[in-house]
Amino acid sequence: MSGISSPTLVVDERKCRLNIERMGTKAKKSNALFRPHFKTHQSIDVGRWVQEFGIDGISVSSIDMARYFAAGGFDDITVCVPFNPREIDKANRLAANIRLNCLVDSQRVAAYLADRVTAPLGMFIEVDCGYRRTGVPSDDETTMNRIIVAMRENSNIRFMGFLTHAGHSYHTESVQEIIEIHEDTKKKMHAISDHFKRDHPGLLLSFGDTPCCSVIPDFDGMDEARPGNFVFYDMTQVALGACGPAEVAVALACGVIGKYEARGELVVHGGGVHLGKESLIDRDGRVSFGHVVELSDSGWNDPVPGAVVTSLSQEHGVISAPREFLARTQIGDIIGILPVHACITADTAGKYVTADSKPLNHRRTLAV
Amino acid sequence: MSGISSPTLVVDERKCRLNIERMGTKAKKSNALFRPHFKTHQSIDVGRWVQEFGIDGISVSSIDMARYFAAGGFDDITVCVPFNPREIDKANRLAANIRLNCLVDSQRVAAYLADRVTAPLGMFIEVDCGYRRTGVPSDDETTMNRIIVAMRENSNIRFMGFLTHAGHSYHTESVQEIIEIHEDTKKKMHAISDHFKRDHPGLLLSFGDTPCCSVIPDFDGMDEARPGNFVFYDMTQVALGACGPAEVAVALACGVIGKYEARGELVVHGGGVHLGKESLIDRDGRVSFGHVVELSDSGWNDPVPGAVVTSLSQEHGVISAPREFLARTQIGDIIGILPVHACITADTAGKYVTADSKPLNHRRTLAV
Repeated sequence: MSGISSPTLVVDERKCRLNIERMGTKAKKSNALFRPHFKTHQSIDVGRWVQEFGIDGISVSSIDMARYFAAGGFDDITVCVPFNPREIDKANRLAANIRLNCLVDSQRVAAYLADRVTAPLGMFIEVDCGYRRTGVPSDDETTMNRIIVAMRENSNIRFMGFLTHAGHSYHTESVQEIIEIHEDTKKKMHAISDHFKRDHPGLLLSFGDTPCCSVIPDFDGMDEARPGNFVFYDMTQVALGACGPAEVAVALACGVIGKYEARGELVVHGGGVHLGKESLIDRDGRVSFGHVVELSDSGWNDPVPGAVVTSLSQEHGVISAPREFLARTQIGDIIGILPVHACITADTAGKYVTADSKPLNHRRTLAV
Repeated sequence: MSGISSPTLVVDERKCRLNIERMGTKAKKSNALFRPHFKTHQSIDVGRWVQEFGIDGISVSSIDMARYFAAGGFDDITVCVPFNPREIDKANRLAANIRLNCLVDSQRVAAYLADRVTAPLGMFIEVDCGYRRTGVPSDDETTMNRIIVAMRENSNIRFMGFLTHAGHSYHTESVQEIIEIHEDTKKKMHAISDHFKRDHPGLLLSFGDTPCCSVIPDFDGMDEARPGNFVFYDMTQVALGACGPAEVAVALACGVIGKYEARGELVVHGGGVHLGKESLIDRDGRVSFGHVVELSDSGWNDPVPGAVVTSLSQEHGVISAPREFLARTQIGDIIGILPVHACITADTAGKYVTADSKPLNHRRTLAV
C-alpha cells in the first residue's frame, strides 16, 4: 500500500472471504437459505466472492441497486425496503428479466401493485417485530390478511412469506440482549407463520441483521437469513460484540498531513467524503469516527489502542493519538482507519482496492 | 417535480444565485477578493453561476477536486487543506497548467515542497486562530518564519500570505458569539501581518467560514473571503443564525413509502446514502437529520413546523410529523428534506437537478 497517494478504501480479501464463509456455513448447517444483503459492499466483484461460496440469491436496498447487480449477472434479488410506488415502471422492467422480490407493509401499496404489476414479482410482507421503522406490527394479522387478499388480484404477484429486520439489535448493551431480541423476533414470526401457514404452506420466514446473525449459534427456526454488514464488519459491530476487530475487513488508507504534538493529535487527508460521518460513542462517552490501524502490504493488525478519529471535516480527519504512536508517525506516512459503519463508508468512498492493489468496482463508479 | 421517482437532490437556482449575489456584493463593497469554496457544490454548472457574477478564483478541498474544476475551465484555484505530500506529482502536473495555490503549516512540508516543486505554485501559511484543526498556532511566528525561509529555496514557490478557517464559529450559541470569533480572528491575523508585512509587502490575509462571513456586516480588514456553504446553506446554518430557512437552496426530494399513524411517523425512500448522516441537536435535545418541506414545481416554502427526520438508515428516512401533516400526506407523495449539512448531502447524492428538472453535473458523476 506504499503507492497510495489520495484516500483509498482497502478491502482485506482474505478476511472478507472468511467472513462470508463463516456466515454461509452457519446457514448451511441449519438448512436456512442465505441471501446476503449486498447494500454493504455494492460491488459485483465482492459479490463474486459470495457466488464462489455457492450463493446466488441476494438482497439489496433499492431497485437501482438491483439493476446494477442484475447487469452483473445476479438474477434472484429481493429489494429489502418497502416498495416505492414511484418506481413501478423500473420494477416492471426489471421483473421481466430476473426473479425479483419486493416488500409491502400496507394494503394501499399491495392494491397499487395489484393494479400495475406486469411481470412476475415475489412479494414479502414486511413485519415489524419491535424495531419500529417499517413493517406491519407483528400482532396486526388483520392488515397482513388484507395485503394477501389485495395481492391475489394480480396473478403475476406471488406471495413469498414474511420478512423482518430486527434493527433494534443495534441499540443493545450486551450480546445477551441481542440474543433476547432474536428469540423474541423468532417467537413473533412463528406466531404469524402458525396463523397463515395452513392457507399458505410454502411461506418463508426471512430474518436478517448482522448482530443477531453473528451472535446466535445457528439459524434454526429461520427459513432465510439476510445479514449484510458481516461481509466487512466495522467498529459498530465490534462495540456490539458481533465480531472482533480482527474480522473488520475494510480500512480507509490515508496520508498524514499534520502532526500537532502539543495537542497529541494527527490530521490525515481523509474526511467525511471518504469515511462518511457516522459516529460511535464509547464507554467513556467519547465520540469516535473510526479507529486507527497500522498498514502493511498484507493488510493490518488490530487497532492502535487509544488512536481514534475524534472529528471529521469534509477532507480532514483529526486523530487523537497516544504519545508513542505520535512519536513514530510522520507527515507523509500512510495509516488506516477502521470505519464506524462500513456500509456508509463503502458507499461514500464509491470504490475500493484490495490490499494487493487490485481495483474492485462499486456501484457508484460503475453505473449501469 | 411530480416526475421524480427515486431520491433526487434539487437545487433552487434562484435562491442559489441570490446567495451568491448577496455574499459577492458584500465582498465587492469591502474591496475584498472573493474566492468561494467549491467543495460545497462540487459542480461546474453551479460554478458557472458564480462565474456569471464575475468571480474567477475559487477554493477547493483536494487536488482531485482542483483537477475537476480545472478541466471545466477554472484556472485560479487554492486547495484549502494542508498539502498532502503524497500528491506531489498530481500537484506538479496541475500547477504546470493553472494558477494553483496550496497550504502549508509545517517546516517539514515546506522543505519537502522546496525540494520537489517543478512548476509555479503559490503557498499560503495556514494559521490556527482557535479552531484547533490544522494551521500554525497564531502566536507561533518562529514556525511561520521557518516555513517562509524553507520555501525560499525553490523559485517556483511564491509566498502568498496567511490563511485561516475559523471553524469554531460552528460551535457557537449566538450570532454575537460568531461575531466575537470573527473579531478575535481578525485581530490575530493582523498581528501576524504586522510582523511580516515589512519583508512581504504584498501578503494577503485570507479568511473564510460561512457563519462569520454571513453575519458580519462587511469584509473590512479581510483581503480575501473564502466561504463555501453559503451557496446552498442548510439547517446547521439556520440553527446558527447565519441564514433563514428561506435561503436554503437545496432539498432532497423523496417519495413517501410508509405511513404509521399510531407512531405519528412517515417513512420516505431517502436515507444515509442520499442525505449523508450528519445530524443536529435542537434546543429541545432532539436529534434531527433534516427538516421537511412541501414541494411545488417552483421550489419549496419554509419547513413544515415539527416535521423532522429523526433517524436514517441506508435508504429509509423516518420522519416524525404532526398530525395534520400526516393526515394530508399519502404513500406515493413526494416531499422535500432540507439537509443538516449541504456539503455532505451534495457529495453523498453525487448529482442534482434544478427545480425545473435541468440536470446539473457533480464531480462524482462527471469524473475527469
